[in-house]
Amino acid sequence: MSKIVIGVMGPGENATKENIECAYKIGKLIAEKGWVLLTGGRNSGVMDAACKGAKDANGLTLGILPTSEPETVSSAVDIAVFTDMKSARNNINILSSKVVIACGMEAGTASEVCLALKIKKEVILINQDEISKNFFKKIGKEKVTFVEKAEEVIQKIESLI
Amino acid sequence: MSKIVIGVMGPGENATKENIECAYKIGKLIAEKGWVLLTGGRNSGVMDAACKGAKDANGLTLGILPTSEPETVSSAVDIAVFTDMKSARNNINILSSKVVIACGMEAGTASEVCLALKIKKEVILINQDEISKNFFKKIGKEKVTFVEKAEEVIQKIESLI
Amino acid sequence: MSKIVIGVMGPGENATKENIECAYKIGKLIAEKGWVLLTGGRNSGVMDAACKGAKDANGLTLGILPTSEPETVSSAVDIAVFTDMKSARNNINILSSKVVIACGMEAGTASEVCLALKIKKEVILINQDEISKNFFKKIGKEKVTFVEKAEEVIQKIESLI
Amino acid sequence: MSKIVIGVMGPGENATKENIECAYKIGKLIAEKGWVLLTGGRNSGVMDAACKGAKDANGLTLGILPTSEPETVSSAVDIAVFTDMKSARNNINILSSKVVIACGMEAGTASEVCLALKIKKEVILINQDEISKNFFKKIGKEKVTFVEKAEEVIQKIESLI
Repeated sequence: MSKIVIGVMGPGENATKENIECAYKIGKLIAEKGWVLLTGGRNSGVMDAACKGAKDANGLTLGILPTSEPETVSSAVDIAVFTDMKSARNNINILSSKVVIACGMEAGTASEVCLALKIKKEVILINQDEISKNFFKKIGKEKVTFVEKAEEVIQKIESLI
Repeated sequence: MSKIVIGVMGPGENATKENIECAYKIGKLIAEKGWVLLTGGRNSGVMDAACKGAKDANGLTLGILPTSEPETVSSAVDIAVFTDMKSARNNINILSSKVVIACGMEAGTASEVCLALKIKKEVILINQDEISKNFFKKIGKEKVTFVEKAEEVIQKIESLI
Repeated sequence: MSKIVIGVMGPGENATKENIECAYKIGKLIAEKGWVLLTGGRNSGVMDAACKGAKDANGLTLGILPTSEPETVSSAVDIAVFTDMKSARNNINILSSKVVIACGMEAGTASEVCLALKIKKEVILINQDEISKNFFKKIGKEKVTFVEKAEEVIQKIESLI
Repeated sequence: MSKIVIGVMGPGENATKENIECAYKIGKLIAEKGWVLLTGGRNSGVMDAACKGAKDANGLTLGILPTSEPETVSSAVDIAVFTDMKSARNNINILSSKVVIACGMEAGTASEVCLALKIKKEVILINQDEISKNFFKKIGKEKVTFVEKAEEVIQKIESLI
């Protein structure tokens, strides 16, 4: 039986300090549960922070990279999967995650949330503004959950898997 | 020099009557301008209607299919590109379109709009509700244009290319 | 009904003078039959030559590009599909071609022939050496045809479609 | 620093008894070295056997699946990456492997060897016939190594990484 993989998505270069702190915490909590953490794998923003959190809890981290360049991989990624298919790899992130979590919101992250909702995958959105909440409620209906804190994410995942 | 390709995205099975009428009209207007129409290529909803509109104006239609099944192709597609990569093909739709138009809105369409905005491609959204407008304004800023009618789409495209 | 698409594969930068002459001739003959020519779309080697041949016979040419860079597209490509997924796009070339033709042989071309044979698609190999013939006979059995001249390619395609 | 990933490719349903025994042994030896084993992830042939070998040595196994169907995953895959892009995922297998090993030979496996040689990745082919040896020597030159036994594979990998 393959391990449970939980995906954490979010901005790279444009991540806020709050996004990064949140991603680190979520990554750590995911690892403490024994789940594998999946991210986009780059050494930037939410991807990097979530992986660092997971490693600080001795977790296992999987990065699905948009390029084939080893120098772009987060130092906290254990297993680097190089796709060299840019944003087309977003769909792999979604398909390979049992539950999808988004921390922060920009176009790339939003595309991943939409791809998840398209296939009725469960999505947990953390600390989003009303504009994003309204949109994803409309698009995703009962498949989207909104939480405010990292701890709530774990409770929600446990209720889903 | 390769031809100008304009992409029209929108729901398949869940398209409304209004989406379909709008897509047909846009497809026709695009063809009348001599542009190639790109859609997701399936024999359903906005994809099918836009292609039919374009063919009724003797246009050229390109369908980028999610599967490799010839029986799923719209009868109004001239050139079928089979990707067999499901929603990962959405990124190809975006990369290959000079301007991206969305008629209707659901998760798949939204993922395409987001992928376009991620690479700063111009997007024209037709007849959207306030929830979607607010979201894409936030995500896409000056790269998103909102219009109410098919005719306005053509004017906007002409100002962009 | 979508048009018949015939794919011509072969080396880019490493194409020989003979490969290029052969590709030009095949592209021209394909266009004269009214079929759409599919290539990898770059402004180099067999891709470029086949497209030029097709355009000289007023054909329609489709290029499936490995990148998203317009400056890499052959000037003889009518419709450029940008995948930005490097060699993963080879599978799209194969899936979208009714019959696959290879002119010249190197690693990229060989991967396309193998992908075609994997799904039992008909492949025509032109003017290959004994080493390649033996290998593809073993791998592809009755799905591979070996010919010496461009004219024979057309006869074979006609017998297949 | 991400872990060293070694890819083992080979037939699924058409694998011979010899292919399967060889793949099991290679998988085991890779795991004993502490390397991550990458395969195509399905519960069939070389993919399944290599993963079982690695698990019997307490290794870590990564499967890059062509579909999104959990029921097709080998029971010996620890981390399942679902691509849902069929043979286009072959390129991901190659890009993500430090060294590529092939056990057995059929069209799919051959496409992977070709994709590896296209980007000058080191490939080790085990126990191949003269026809395949001659072809890959021509296509891959100094990047291809031919060995007869599983143990030689490990020595070769150690000399390369």
